[in-house]
Amino acid sequence: MNRQLTFIGHISTPYNTLDACPNNISFEGPACQLKLKPEYRRELSGLNEGQNILILYWLQNPDESVNQPYRYTGTGGCDDTDSKRSGTFALRTPLRPNPVGAAVLPIQQISDGEITVRGLDCLNNTRLLDIKPAIYLEAGKAS
Amino acid sequence: MNRQLTFIGHISTPYNTLDACPNNISFEGPACQLKLKPEYRRELSGLNEGQNILILYWLQNPDESVNQPYRYTGTGGCDDTDSKRSGTFALRTPLRPNPVGAAVLPIQQISDGEITVRGLDCLNNTRLLDIKPAIYLEAGKAS
Repeated sequence: MNRQLTFIGHISTPYNTLDACPNNISFEGPACQLKLKPEYRRELSGLNEGQNILILYWLQNPDESVNQPYRYTGTGGCDDTDSKRSGTFALRTPLRPNPVGAAVLPIQQISDGEITVRGLDCLNNTRLLDIKPAIYLEAGKAS
Repeated sequence: MNRQLTFIGHISTPYNTLDACPNNISFEGPACQLKLKPEYRRELSGLNEGQNILILYWLQNPDESVNQPYRYTGTGGCDDTDSKRSGTFALRTPLRPNPVGAAVLPIQQISDGEITVRGLDCLNNTRLLDIKPAIYLEAGKAS
């Protein structure tokens, strides 16, 4: 089975080193741009400002000359001496079997194949994988 | 840059053909099991019943002998004659550049490397990619 990903664009953030990245998403954080490759731009049609979107991105260092800091070692958040520690799937750590990051944020602005959101916490030039309408956010509220 | 995915397990649903799959997630739907491979089971530590999780899965037909119905053709939901149609990224269609499905659902039950949720709409044996705590759901409510 094919299991290869396609990068549909990249994310511009103010963070050029891992040390500069904040530890979490902040709804009041700085503006970040989701920049789509030309062939995907028209697929944004139907999305609107204010709408919540689920953003999926590839949590590997975009600078390929740098050693990869995001490597899942299989030890996760657990070790044998501390059974109460949270495992990988209970955490938002980038050290995952599949280093796919996810964030739900409202669209601040949308134009010309570019979406602006506030407060992503990933490195500048992080590769973009997908954008989906976050309809389940509404469903989750109701449940 | 590596862009290859790892399957961490599979999802059991009642749907063995695409025709049998419902068109959307239903919070009242039948029970479905997220079944992790042995090496990932302890990474569920820290997740609890009632907690909302983001589930990521690979939307390609798990039966590799069947022709692949989920193929992104590049035409998305738009065509040149109807500029008002929604594009791929405004839809939950499986016909995406990266066929990664996402659902946010509460954990009904968790035990022995298996999580039960209600109402997923994907094929039986769909490959599982990731589970994350859906903390942004709470943040989204507050915003």
